[in-house]
Parts: sequence; structure tokens; C-alpha cells
Amino acid sequence: MSSLFVRTLREDPADAEVPSHRWLVRAGYIRRAAPGIYTWLPLGLKVLAKVERIVREEMDAIGAQEVRFPALLPREPYEATNRWTEYGPNLFRLQDRKGVDLLLGPTHEEMFTLLVKDLFSSYKDLPLSLYQIQTKYRDEARPRAGLLRGREFVMKDSYSFDVDDAGLQASYDAHRRAYIAIFDRLGLDYVIVKATSGAMGGSASEEFLVLAENGEDTFVRSPGGYAANVEAVTTPAPAPVPFADAPAPRPLPSPGDTTIDLLVVRLNAELPRADRPWTGADTLKNVVFMLIRPDGTREPLVIGLPGDRDVDPKRLDAAVAPAEVAPFEAEDFERFPALVKGYIGPQVLGASSPSRIRYVVDPRVVTGTRWVTGANEVDLHVVDLVAGRDFTPDGVLDVAEVREGDPAPDGSGPLTLARGIEMGHIFQLGRKYAEALGLKVLDANGKLVTVTMGSYGVGVSRAVAAVAENTCDDKGLAWPRALAPFDVHVLATGKDAAALAAAEDLAAELARHGIEVLLDDRKASPGVKFTDAELLGMPTSVVFGRRLADGMVEVRDRASGDRVEVPVAEVAAHLVALVRGS
Amino acid sequence: MSSLFVRTLREDPADAEVPSHRWLVRAGYIRRAAPGIYTWLPLGLKVLAKVERIVREEMDAIGAQEVRFPALLPREPYEATNRWTEYGPNLFRLQDRKGVDLLLGPTHEEMFTLLVKDLFSSYKDLPLSLYQIQTKYRDEARPRAGLLRGREFVMKDSYSFDVDDAGLQASYDAHRRAYIAIFDRLGLDYVIVKATSGAMGGSASEEFLVLAENGEDTFVRSPGGYAANVEAVTTPAPAPVPFADAPAPRPLPSPGDTTIDLLVVRLNAELPRADRPWTGADTLKNVVFMLIRPDGTREPLVIGLPGDRDVDPKRLDAAVAPAEVAPFEAEDFERFPALVKGYIGPQVLGASSPSRIRYVVDPRVVTGTRWVTGANEVDLHVVDLVAGRDFTPDGVLDVAEVREGDPAPDGSGPLTLARGIEMGHIFQLGRKYAEALGLKVLDANGKLVTVTMGSYGVGVSRAVAAVAENTCDDKGLAWPRALAPFDVHVLATGKDAAALAAAEDLAAELARHGIEVLLDDRKASPGVKFTDAELLGMPTSVVFGRRLADGMVEVRDRASGDRVEVPVAEVAAHLVALVRGS
Repeated sequence: MSSLFVRTLREDPADAEVPSHRWLVRAGYIRRAAPGIYTWLPLGLKVLAKVERIVREEMDAIGAQEVRFPALLPREPYEATNRWTEYGPNLFRLQDRKGVDLLLGPTHEEMFTLLVKDLFSSYKDLPLSLYQIQTKYRDEARPRAGLLRGREFVMKDSYSFDVDDAGLQASYDAHRRAYIAIFDRLGLDYVIVKATSGAMGGSASEEFLVLAENGEDTFVRSPGGYAANVEAVTTPAPAPVPFADAPAPRPLPSPGDTTIDLLVVRLNAELPRADRPWTGADTLKNVVFMLIRPDGTREPLVIGLPGDRDVDPKRLDAAVAPAEVAPFEAEDFERFPALVKGYIGPQVLGASSPSRIRYVVDPRVVTGTRWVTGANEVDLHVVDLVAGRDFTPDGVLDVAEVREGDPAPDGSGPLTLARGIEMGHIFQLGRKYAEALGLKVLDANGKLVTVTMGSYGVGVSRAVAAVAENTCDDKGLAWPRALAPFDVHVLATGKDAAALAAAEDLAAELARHGIEVLLDDRKASPGVKFTDAELLGMPTSVVFGRRLADGMVEVRDRASGDRVEVPVAEVAAHLVALVRGS
Repeated sequence: MSSLFVRTLREDPADAEVPSHRWLVRAGYIRRAAPGIYTWLPLGLKVLAKVERIVREEMDAIGAQEVRFPALLPREPYEATNRWTEYGPNLFRLQDRKGVDLLLGPTHEEMFTLLVKDLFSSYKDLPLSLYQIQTKYRDEARPRAGLLRGREFVMKDSYSFDVDDAGLQASYDAHRRAYIAIFDRLGLDYVIVKATSGAMGGSASEEFLVLAENGEDTFVRSPGGYAANVEAVTTPAPAPVPFADAPAPRPLPSPGDTTIDLLVVRLNAELPRADRPWTGADTLKNVVFMLIRPDGTREPLVIGLPGDRDVDPKRLDAAVAPAEVAPFEAEDFERFPALVKGYIGPQVLGASSPSRIRYVVDPRVVTGTRWVTGANEVDLHVVDLVAGRDFTPDGVLDVAEVREGDPAPDGSGPLTLARGIEMGHIFQLGRKYAEALGLKVLDANGKLVTVTMGSYGVGVSRAVAAVAENTCDDKGLAWPRALAPFDVHVLATGKDAAALAAAEDLAAELARHGIEVLLDDRKASPGVKFTDAELLGMPTSVVFGRRLADGMVEVRDRASGDRVEVPVAEVAAHLVALVRGS
């Protein structure tokens, strides 16, 4: 400790939002270099290296081969797949001295595809899985939470190449097993959920989420075992409703009713139902956004959904990607007079209507359902507007918020919601990239077939934070043995030179057993040493203190707080057994 | 080999200028991703990892502590030291989505200085040496020779921090020892030469150059042990010459004599000397360049040197850095009429002359020397122009070419020239960065003192190429044991299944001994396998071929080409002993 490059801090960093960020900075594991960009100090780098080793071992175990791509990449391959544009402002772009466009790689599908195309040409060369552990870049709009959402970060990304769908499934399954092994070894508390594939394209996809209150991802689970990222939850569509007997729509003057709540109050007051009161679920809320395509073109998008639900911004983002949505501003309403703010109704919407404004609906808005909704005039609503009779949506967009108690789409019971940190993501990409970049091989019959691919990622630097988030307490970090920068923290707190000498002897003896020891040899008070040991979070510490005169030392377990006294003559053997798990 | 991600190529890459580049690409160790930017394939990455491990072990051995900085860095620290500007077009610059300036780090002096300033504050915290093994970026004007001069590359850079000069010297000496250990372990044929510190600032500096015909660096050696990068060679200045008796300068009409050779012919014809013929060394050649400062301002710079010497562009570049020089163009001569092309003389030059054009001279142009030189008029020269009497230079600039046979500056004999690859560089930076960025600590008396720093670099990815360059032959790569991706290459060339089965048995047995084995199990001809084995370059290969029927296998040494027959029952033990060096 007297020579280690570390300084523990007594104050939280100003921008710390989550415990892992606070403790990793205060314990001197990482240091901010720029927003979302961190320097690894010696202790942090040791943890990172241990995560990397675990990931590498498990990838090697499934026969994946390690390569390393540059981070600085040419534009052309990303142009071929349109991601140069689709990534929008999330991509760091630059030009070299000759004005040639380059980018800092956020993910490497294109480069791997081209490399395999470059070197391999036959079905006999496949299956193939390649991976890299490499620094990646993403110009996040809001870098936050330290290592959890940074702009420069370490990822393990791998890619599988197969001749057919069965091969892809096998490669996908192998990666799934490897990921389970990795996250088990990291000691993370995680769930595997269905996921959307977002901008990556492709079909089947699952996420490995670490349970964490501060996680950015919301996911759902059902008692029957359904689990999905909230973006991936599908809402079962009810059966169509017969509407032959439905009354004709009629206007409902509704001065000032610009919210669903006001409208429901009016309905119950002026048109009370016999069977039950009106609720927000009887109304059709039409929410308008400005859709911005990757090429920069903009058009209004109106989403109709039951009035008791809101649009979930993350589900919406995932559903429209690679396009983005922006709020619909006052000047936008001026440009599109068909949209009457607060009174939008579907009667004037749709690609085939005069307004040509795109109109999509929640899956619950099936043919025959009857709605109270806007009449496209200020202070006017309409009652008994029937889907499929009085209006026809352009399609379904399943982006309403998911709620506790909603039914799981597979009928496995009511959903509960929780939050997590995305630690891994496995995709069946299929042939999207191979087609765009012309990766074909000769099959057994000598025919050219397009290769099918998978793409698999682990957040390696993020794992350091996720483990910290899962294990820290109100005193600091508390590493599991597999990841701690040192196995044992030896503290010499006794006042006389004998304590330090005995501590040094133990440190030397443990080192001979291959155990990594951090020795606190500083001239500091016992209180400072104890506080720092708890902050730094080695799993086991040994105190050479007052009781050394009686031949005893104290062994402390950081996670449980348990303390046992051990005779100094036996402590080395005791610690070796502890560290080796025997 | 049947599942390894490798394809050997029969053709040289089009841009291969040096053997290491050719063989690393043809053997499937690296693959070009963009100009000066390479992907590491599995075999190459294994070599790189072994180099990294050696570097890491030797840095740890001198007590340096590993950290890792980001590659994407903020502008401000580089602004504070003026390197944002001084790096010119060599720096990759970019902006993030908010328009904030960032750069891709070419070297990290500023960031390390700020980190230590951030965390440490007392002389008790020093000495401190920190290092990183990290990806660096430099937008080379002419990336070439594969890994030898790339735009994205892996460096080990370290930085030492001391309170005083003696501490800096000790840190520098420790790094020097570590570098010797590293380059010895890499098996490189290298020399340590005095170097200039270039844009890094600072004083003492040495380079570790690997001897290589294709090296970009020229260096000199003397029989007495002097060794220096050609940029760092200093020319001893002769003693001043008494000039009281020197005749007055007189004009020499010289129509058409725009070269030194023509002038010397005329001198010997029209003004023959009694003692000896005139030579170019009697003339003063004045060469004009346009000097471009980092801030973009331009001014002429005239260099006077003996007419039998040329300016060495690399020595000039190093001497004027961070400024640069450009050719002096026809339109420049128009703007500066004092400079008469082909007839420039020092009479009208110098900061205190009416022209104010800066005039510097070679160290040999000492006070009292007599010269034939231009008279600043077309077709006119002047004889007996005396330095210190008839002209006064603004200073000395030691940039003339160094020649075989020139005296070493320390009197250790005549110099010989050779070429090398710069593999390491150690600098005593001194206080330049600490002063610019305010890195001070309290000394033992409680007084703030500026820290003194060293900066030390090893080209880690370049080392892969340098070792290849040092060891390859006309058949391919030939790795030393310390760096080979596999220890032993096992070839099953026999036609029957028994050869492959025996080869597999050996591979399995060697693996049990912790030996890394590459097994060629492909259905390919013996010729293909032998050619590939020589191309890939594992130090030892074993052939299970025709002689297996007699119980014999052949063990081949890649470097020497030696082959021995070994009974199959003994080959495992034979190989274990070989690999372990016992």
C-alpha cells in the first residue's frame, strides 16, 4: 500500500449516480478522463484482466478462435450495410490527413464478415466462430454511471459462421452455454431474457441481464418462466369483435377535454353506461411523434392505443430503429393541420387518407373494437368509432407500456417487472450481413450458398461495474474471490515493529504459495487501514494488531463481516485453504 | 490446421516492401484492414500476446505499475502543452456529437502527468513508474512495411516521476535495464544509440534499434563504442582560425556556375591554388528552405554548409521540430529578392541584415574560415569571404549528412553507418510536462517542487515484425521459441490412418506436458504441409511420414534446417527437452 498507485477518496465523485461508480472511483480503481471515458488504475486493471481471462477461457472452450480487429475502421464496409448512416450520432466519425472517412468501431459485424469472405470459401471451412476482446466506441448521448454506460469500453464480441440454419442454432447454443459459464464464474445474479435485435437485424436474440435496481433495462418475468426485455414483450392481440350491431359513431362535444381523465369524467357524467363506468381503456388515445429516418427525412407518426396506457419510449425506440422519434412540436402541428392537438382521431389518418399521415395502433385495437376518441376538431370527441369500420390503421406497433400483472404472451401467467444491466447479448443474425457483403461458400454440391451468422457480445469493462454493483455495500467494494485484485489484504495495525515484521513474513509466505497479497505497510492509524480495507474490498483480510502479543491474528471476511481469531502459526495454512476453496 | 482460422497465401501482398510484411501476411498472421491498419489473426495474436507478456514481466520487475488510459482523449491537456498544434497532421482529431474536440492518443505524457497530479502530492509518494500496454494512433503520411510503420499500433509506454534529477537518472537506468532484458528475451539483434528527443522535449535520450537492412533509421557506430541515431550525431566544431592576414574578399565572375562542381572546375582553372586543388569543401553552399512553424507561419531559413556536403533531410526535420520545412519554391524566390537562386551568399543574410532572413551554419563554419560562395548576383561568386569578418551567422544548425569515416564526436574513431528499426526509446523528459501542467509535490521541507519525468516506449506490435524481420528466410517465418505461436508443429504426412493417429497421440501427449502443439491433420499432400510448416515458422516440427513404418519420425529445426530421426517411442521426451531448453 505504501508504493501502490492508489489514493482512496473520502468524497463521492460529483457525477456518481450508482454505487459501483461511486466505489470504483473512491477506491481508486478507475478515474474519469473525459465524459464516459475512464482510465484503469492498477487495482481496476487487475479486475478487468481477471474478467478478460474468464471470458477468454470460456470462449476458447467452445472452440472460438481469438483475433483482434482495429478500432479505427474504414467507412466502406459500414456504408455497404447502411450502418454508417443508421448509427447516426452514436458513431464516432473522423477523417484522416487525406480526407478519407474513418470510424471508431462500435461493433464489427462487417469487418468479420469481410475477413471470412477474404480467407474462406468452402463449407468445409465451417462452422467457424471468431472472437475478440477489444476496445469499442459509441458516442452516447448521455454517458452515465461510470463504466456502465461509457463511450470507450471493452467488449468481447464474437461471430459465428455456418452454412445452414441448424449450424447457426448449434453455434448460438454453444455461445449461450459459454455465456452461462462466464456469468456463473463472474458470480453475477442474472437472468436470460428474450430480446429484440434492434439495429443488428436478425431474428432470435436473448439478453443476459444482471439484476440491479440501477439497471437501465427493464424486463418482465412470469411465474411460468417467460422472461423478456421490455422492448421484446409482445402483446397478445385479442380476437376480432363482431360489429354488425354496433351503433353509428356520434359526436361528443367536449370543451377543454384535452386529457383522457377529463374525457372519462365527462363520459360518466353525460353518457353513463349501464354495465360499468367508463374507463380510460374505452378511449383511443392518439399520440403523435416525428419519425426521423436514418437519411434525415422526417414524417409524422400517429400511434393509437387504449387511453389508459402510455407509449413506452424504449419500446418505441426499439420498434422504429434504425429510425428515431422526436417530439412533435408546435410548428409541426402548424405544418400538419389535419392533426388537432388534444383531439386527434383516426378518421383523417392513414396512408390512404387525404392527409397520408401514417397511423399505427396497439395490438389491442383489433377490428370491431369500439372507441371514444378525438374528432379532429377542437372541443369535440366521437363515441362508438369502430376499428375496421370507421377507420383502418396502417399497421400494428406494439409500443405501449408493459405493466405489472399484464398477461405473459405465452399464457404463462401475469408479468412482474424488474430492472437489470445488460451484460451479454446473443443474436441469430442470419444472412443480413453475409448478403450485404457477399459472403458465400461452396456447399457440398459445389453450389454457392450465403453463410448464416450469429453475433454475440459481452460487456467486459461493464462486467467490472456489474459485479461491483451486485456485491458492494455501504462500506465499499466486496469482490468475489475470482475477481479480487488481491486474494488477501494483510494489515499491520500494531504499534510496534513486530506487527509489521510478522505481517511481512505472512505476505512473503503467501506469495510463495502463489497467493496475491496486498500488504498495508503504511504509517497510518488502524482506523484508516480498516476503512481502506473495507473500501478496497479484498475478500479476506488479516489483522496483525493488539492480539499479536498473544500469538493471535484476526481474519476478516469482507462480504459477511465475519471475524475469526487464528493463531499466527496457523494463519498461512488457514488462508491458503480459504483462497483455494478447500 | 483443419479448423484453425488461417489461410496461407502463395502470392506476396501487392504493397509488401519488406520480408516481415510479406511473410506475416502470406502466413496468415495479420491482414490489412485499411492503410497502415491491421487485423491480428489467431497466429499473429498469439505472438503479440507473448511479446506483451515479456514486456509486462520486465516492467513489473522494475516496480513499474500497470494502468490503462483511454485512446480517445480530450483536447485540453494537449492544448496546454501545445502538442494539439505541434503534432500537425500526424494527430487523428475528431469531434463528438456535441462538437467537443477529441483526439486519438499518439502518446500519453499529458494524461499521465495529470493523473499523478490528481492523486499524488508528496515526495513520499515518489519515485513512481507507471506503464500501459495500449493501442496508439498516428496518422502517418506514408504508412508502410506492414506493422513496422502503421497508423494503429500497440505500444508499451511508461512514465517515471521523481522529485530530483538523481531520482530521474535512477528511474531512467531502471528502464534501460528492463529494455535490455526485454530485447534480449525477444531475441533481437539490437544496438543502443544516443538519440534526439524530437517533439518530446527533454534532454538525455537513447534508442534501441534492431539491426535491419530495411530499417527506417540510420545510425552510426565508432570502433571506440560511440553509437548514435544519425539525427543525434553532433559534429565537432574545429577551433576558430586566425584571420588577421586573410585577404579581402574579391568577386569571381562565374557565368552559369549554379552547382558546386562547376564552381570548383572554374576555381581550379582560373585561380589555381599552390598547395592543392580546390574542392567542394572550400566552398560555402547556402541552401534555402521554407520553415513552417506549428502555428502555420512561414519564413525562409538559409543553411550554410561546406559545399561537399548535403543537408540530411532527417537530421533537418529532427533539428527544426516541432516546426517543419518545405522546399523553397519559385514563387518564394520572387517574394524574397535578396535570395538569388544558385548564387546565394551570406553577406545579405541574418536576422540583423536588411533582409532579416535567418541564416544558420554547419558547425564547421567557424570564425576565421575562408570561403568561396555566392555573391547574391546572377553569375557572380565571391572568394575569401571570412566567417566572423564578412558575415555573422544567426547560429549553428548541425544538419549536414553524416558520412562513413567522419570522426565520432567523442574522438572514438571513424564512424560507420548502418540501418535499424526503432524498437524502444527512453527519454529524460525533465520538467517540461510537469511545468506545463502544474505537477508539483511537497518536498521533505514542505516546499512545492516541480516533478521531473521520464518517458519510455516499446513498439509492441512493431516487435512482432522486427523479430520476423530478424529471423525469416526465403521460405517464410522462423520464430524463436519465446515467441512462436506454437512450440511444436506436428505433421501427419503418411498416407494411411496410422500416421494421423500417431500424430494425434503425440499432440495429446505433448499437450499434457503443457506444450502448445499445432497439428496438421488436413487432407493435403506432404508437399503442401511441408511448405506451410516452413512458411508458418514454428521452431520445431515433427513429421509422421514414410519412416513411421520403421518406428521413426523426423524432427526438423526450422531455423537451422537440421533434421534428425527419432524413434517414435522417444519423440515426446525428445521434444519436451527441446522446448524446455534442457
